[in-house]
Amino acid sequence: MFDPGWNPLHGVPSYPAERYGVLADRIGGILQSRSDILLVQAEAVVALEAVAASLARPGLSALNIVTSPYGGWFGQWLRRGGATVRDIVAEPGLPIVIEAVAGALDADPGIDVLAVVHAESASGILNPLSEILALARDRGIATVVDAVASVGGHSLDVDHLGIDIAVIGPQKALGGPAGLSALSVSRRAWNMILSDGAPRDSILSLADLEAWLDNGRWALPGTPAPLEFFALEAALDRIEAEGLENLVARHALAASATRAGLAALGTPAWVPAARASNLVTAVPAPVGLAPVALIAAAGRLGVELTEGVGTAPARLLRLNHTGQRAAFQTVLANVVAYGAALRQAGHSCDIAAASEAISATYSR
Amino acid sequence: MFDPGWNPLHGVPSYPAERYGVLADRIGGILQSRSDILLVQAEAVVALEAVAASLARPGLSALNIVTSPYGGWFGQWLRRGGATVRDIVAEPGLPIVIEAVAGALDADPGIDVLAVVHAESASGILNPLSEILALARDRGIATVVDAVASVGGHSLDVDHLGIDIAVIGPQKALGGPAGLSALSVSRRAWNMILSDGAPRDSILSLADLEAWLDNGRWALPGTPAPLEFFALEAALDRIEAEGLENLVARHALAASATRAGLAALGTPAWVPAARASNLVTAVPAPVGLAPVALIAAAGRLGVELTEGVGTAPARLLRLNHTGQRAAFQTVLANVVAYGAALRQAGHSCDIAAASEAISATYSR
Amino acid sequence: MFDPGWNPLHGVPSYPAERYGVLADRIGGILQSRSDILLVQAEAVVALEAVAASLARPGLSALNIVTSPYGGWFGQWLRRGGATVRDIVAEPGLPIVIEAVAGALDADPGIDVLAVVHAESASGILNPLSEILALARDRGIATVVDAVASVGGHSLDVDHLGIDIAVIGPQKALGGPAGLSALSVSRRAWNMILSDGAPRDSILSLADLEAWLDNGRWALPGTPAPLEFFALEAALDRIEAEGLENLVARHALAASATRAGLAALGTPAWVPAARASNLVTAVPAPVGLAPVALIAAAGRLGVELTEGVGTAPARLLRLNHTGQRAAFQTVLANVVAYGAALRQAGHSCDIAAASEAISATYSR
Amino acid sequence: MFDPGWNPLHGVPSYPAERYGVLADRIGGILQSRSDILLVQAEAVVALEAVAASLARPGLSALNIVTSPYGGWFGQWLRRGGATVRDIVAEPGLPIVIEAVAGALDADPGIDVLAVVHAESASGILNPLSEILALARDRGIATVVDAVASVGGHSLDVDHLGIDIAVIGPQKALGGPAGLSALSVSRRAWNMILSDGAPRDSILSLADLEAWLDNGRWALPGTPAPLEFFALEAALDRIEAEGLENLVARHALAASATRAGLAALGTPAWVPAARASNLVTAVPAPVGLAPVALIAAAGRLGVELTEGVGTAPARLLRLNHTGQRAAFQTVLANVVAYGAALRQAGHSCDIAAASEAISATYSR
Repeated sequence: MFDPGWNPLHGVPSYPAERYGVLADRIGGILQSRSDILLVQAEAVVALEAVAASLARPGLSALNIVTSPYGGWFGQWLRRGGATVRDIVAEPGLPIVIEAVAGALDADPGIDVLAVVHAESASGILNPLSEILALARDRGIATVVDAVASVGGHSLDVDHLGIDIAVIGPQKALGGPAGLSALSVSRRAWNMILSDGAPRDSILSLADLEAWLDNGRWALPGTPAPLEFFALEAALDRIEAEGLENLVARHALAASATRAGLAALGTPAWVPAARASNLVTAVPAPVGLAPVALIAAAGRLGVELTEGVGTAPARLLRLNHTGQRAAFQTVLANVVAYGAALRQAGHSCDIAAASEAISATYSR
Repeated sequence: MFDPGWNPLHGVPSYPAERYGVLADRIGGILQSRSDILLVQAEAVVALEAVAASLARPGLSALNIVTSPYGGWFGQWLRRGGATVRDIVAEPGLPIVIEAVAGALDADPGIDVLAVVHAESASGILNPLSEILALARDRGIATVVDAVASVGGHSLDVDHLGIDIAVIGPQKALGGPAGLSALSVSRRAWNMILSDGAPRDSILSLADLEAWLDNGRWALPGTPAPLEFFALEAALDRIEAEGLENLVARHALAASATRAGLAALGTPAWVPAARASNLVTAVPAPVGLAPVALIAAAGRLGVELTEGVGTAPARLLRLNHTGQRAAFQTVLANVVAYGAALRQAGHSCDIAAASEAISATYSR
Repeated sequence: MFDPGWNPLHGVPSYPAERYGVLADRIGGILQSRSDILLVQAEAVVALEAVAASLARPGLSALNIVTSPYGGWFGQWLRRGGATVRDIVAEPGLPIVIEAVAGALDADPGIDVLAVVHAESASGILNPLSEILALARDRGIATVVDAVASVGGHSLDVDHLGIDIAVIGPQKALGGPAGLSALSVSRRAWNMILSDGAPRDSILSLADLEAWLDNGRWALPGTPAPLEFFALEAALDRIEAEGLENLVARHALAASATRAGLAALGTPAWVPAARASNLVTAVPAPVGLAPVALIAAAGRLGVELTEGVGTAPARLLRLNHTGQRAAFQTVLANVVAYGAALRQAGHSCDIAAASEAISATYSR
Repeated sequence: MFDPGWNPLHGVPSYPAERYGVLADRIGGILQSRSDILLVQAEAVVALEAVAASLARPGLSALNIVTSPYGGWFGQWLRRGGATVRDIVAEPGLPIVIEAVAGALDADPGIDVLAVVHAESASGILNPLSEILALARDRGIATVVDAVASVGGHSLDVDHLGIDIAVIGPQKALGGPAGLSALSVSRRAWNMILSDGAPRDSILSLADLEAWLDNGRWALPGTPAPLEFFALEAALDRIEAEGLENLVARHALAASATRAGLAALGTPAWVPAARASNLVTAVPAPVGLAPVALIAAAGRLGVELTEGVGTAPARLLRLNHTGQRAAFQTVLANVVAYGAALRQAGHSCDIAAASEAISATYSR
């Protein structure tokens, strides 16, 4: 007989109902927001779809900034619900240009909602969030920010910035579980969601989640997933011990060292620092070299590089320095392994200088 | 500074992509099915909504058997997608009567799909699944079975019974995690789902999941939740070590001992054995006694009884003997604590005889 | 290739050195002692052997109270180190009689150390600890108390009682790990240990452990076992959340209900309540029935009874209500399963009355 | 009230008795030995002390090779038991010279036992094990090998080499728990241990452990520590999945790359490759630089270097590449961080060349 042994994942107890409220408060702390915090028991892409499904209805007009496939889907979900959506699409793999946003807003004074992704892990870019939000604020437009990748890696002061809905997931810079997500919902956003026609009785209904808020406990159909909630607590414990500012600073240092290393290697990062995310750094493979082959060569050293995805140009590679990877050891291994892969492909590069630059950045 | 200590839930590695196929095969074993097995990274209620959303379209005609709120929602989701749905609703807290199903099918020869819940944990009843499926088979009607509560507690031979879509969750009799679910999809069901008009790019799209099947790995947007997949493996390890038939037999014994105990106590179970589930046993509180007070009294002994929910009559209490609770110790504690609660409320009952009956059932 | 999957026990990080001191303080809280607290990285039997090896030397005279094999070994270890030891042995399976202790002390005014086990899990008895300690206090004799089984199940106020060395393990009533143990050492005990001839450089040397105290961190050869220390923290978290007094009261209630149940069953416990431990209850099997057969019959119900061990009379069975087992559900299952086993062996007993008695005890 | 939450280390079940035999067999596979395998529930230093205590008695003559404090203690423990011991001590931080061993054996034909440490993690050296064992074999002398640090990092074929007692711990190259250890005992060694005068009833008695072998299950006093045994299973699962030869090769590669990196940095390793262990690499700090300051500088990059310990020269630093650290990423970070620390202290070194050399070694 196959004997399974003991596994700590056996017999996990139910998550105590009275702790959902505490969890929500702790997430409010991460977001620096006094808005309502909703927990969604599914990956963050579901929370995003739920936001779109819950806001969308005929008569709603939205400006949707697209810098990755997620942005594209968001527009599609809004349209599915009957909304009128204008997508403005950035250059492939680049952040949106603030003038394009201003122009689009000026062109259509009837816009009710603006949606934008804060940082894209698909291409390593950062959108000019505070400038975009300022434009929306001036015009009284509600805002939806996809902060799934950015939360913990960039500062995100939801109330100060005036974000109506911010969606986050714990699985990236926060280093937590991937099976749940959370969002903040302002009073203005609730008014839009709860006006006539709100979908109900669906995983995509934020209106359903309001019941949860009312009694301070989980009130939805289906069984709560205890592993996800306990793992979220564990992640919050770590974040609170490290300090949110220190967590962001650690990601900024990793990004800065990665960029310094790549520059010294002779293959500078894809976008300038001001437009780059702190979570992954994209670098264009030299002409004539296939990213897949470079990734395979790095993989033989035990270092995981990945291709850019979505709308990013095909020759981008990504060096990941998110969460536990925002550390000297990983940053160094990423860059040196990339250099070794280039060498092996016959492309000269200065591994030496790259190591120096990374050490120097971290030693400052 | 708050020091979080070590928590085994920190830094869980990614789930290896090549193991999704293995997981699916193991679930196929549980379902005794060679149909395609899809994994959904959300609680089973989402898989049910996805089934309805993926099947529903104008022109589809469905007969929907309602024995709990889940059944009610299923009809609603089908209607939302444009389908024509006839609900047949059982008496509160009781299984559907087979004649009602036959009559409804005879009355409308254009029905394409029949949907039914196998066992209801809300009221502890079991629908006459094989008889219902036989009626559908004779008429060439596709079938959707919600086996979320029943899988592992009752035998469920998907291919032999001719079920087109069976939806399960690991969190009940299988004793596993709640943050994912699975379903089997027959060729006929795929044809219905993939015909023109299939929704795409949504958590509710089964058509999206077909891509997953094609390359044998996770291919959906969003990050896979490793804890859920590793915990599902742990549950399958245990089930395979115990044996699926032994697992079902253990639930049947727990149900039988609970019923014998309640009868001896002087408060027989709500439905006769042939119509009862193996997972929870519902019992009507004696007239004049509030279920809530009895539950509180049992709770003081550390024993958790619950109220019936949904369409079940308000005076039902439930004794849970699902998963790890399908054991002598829990069955005995449930019934004796219920007896002690009755006593405390001034209602006479025979705790003695109940204990005897449970011991005798388990000692046979 | 065999694929091991993820196991949370992989890659456990080192235990942070600065937390040993915190751990020791928390254990001091459990023992209500300001003595030095030493952590020993081995099961508590090793801590006991180390105490004997560290105290013993030619010229030391000890009175050793023997109520189980552990007591016997303790005397042997003292003798091995050169001490003169007088064992006083209780009746098999019974606590020591206080008059015997007084008599032995009176007979030999040169005794330096008195050693006694607080509660015996081998036979379920409790020695009259405070009376014994009073006798030693009056005579200025140092005392060693084996509180491995009793800690958490009985109150143990080390400083108030004037215990010089108390040895505990976390694996019984405290519900913690078994791979480490702890002891409190008074100033007087240190003086005895550190006087000329103290063994050094050995797992059995308490003098070595003093180095640990001096710098507040682990200072011994060998690698600290992180799992044990993290698991001890987890146990202390639970104990502090429940409250030490509540933990002791929970064990007292379990013992009391077990005894009431056995009495009602018609097979009273082995020793009267005043001489019984709160951790396990021993009961003599009726004449003519083999304990092993009764244990096997209970085992078929999934209930684990055990034989008495060591010096306990051969016909004793033990019902365990220690740690998580100190709960209504386990107490009830233990007694009813024992009753069912008696019945099956043809011995009449009143399972009914036993269940009643247990419910009544817990409902008070 | 402080709420401890759920911790997977709560409520760990007992280790099933029937699995000790399986564990022992799996360890026999690691050691490539058909000798009896004993499990000791304590860190490996206790197993070593037990070996000495169990072998030692008046009349026994031992040659004890000392290349670290552990070797020194081993001689002391043998002497404590009455044996006559000749220590031969290597130069500080260096392996023993084979001629010294031969000379000592020739000088005293009455030697019964030879003891040696295979690899020293205190100084990163490797003793010439097979040559030493050949000398003993020729003379019919029993051998004790401390393989605690080396097992998994170097090949160790116990039966082929003719080792009588090999002591191992899972906590180094095997990547397992530190709270237990194991040893192989040949028939000849048993004869020595069990001859008249064997200590009994002690953590230091191997004779006690024979009882364990006789009934194939744990038979010692005290509670088995389930966490340690389950964690050992997890480690063995990983090792068997990787393959013992691959595990050794991975350590050899890490050592080789570390040495190449240090040489290119301009600060070659302490001992030549043939005399170096695969587990840690020691390097002498340049004259005038304090190891402690260099360690602190590397620590600011998140890289942990350590001082040499024991008999190693005071200016040695150690780079650890044991277990999970036997990987490109850690080797690279170790060497570059050491280089950065040298730079910061004003000592020039070629970080560039070091990175190159490490990449080149791993890319071969």
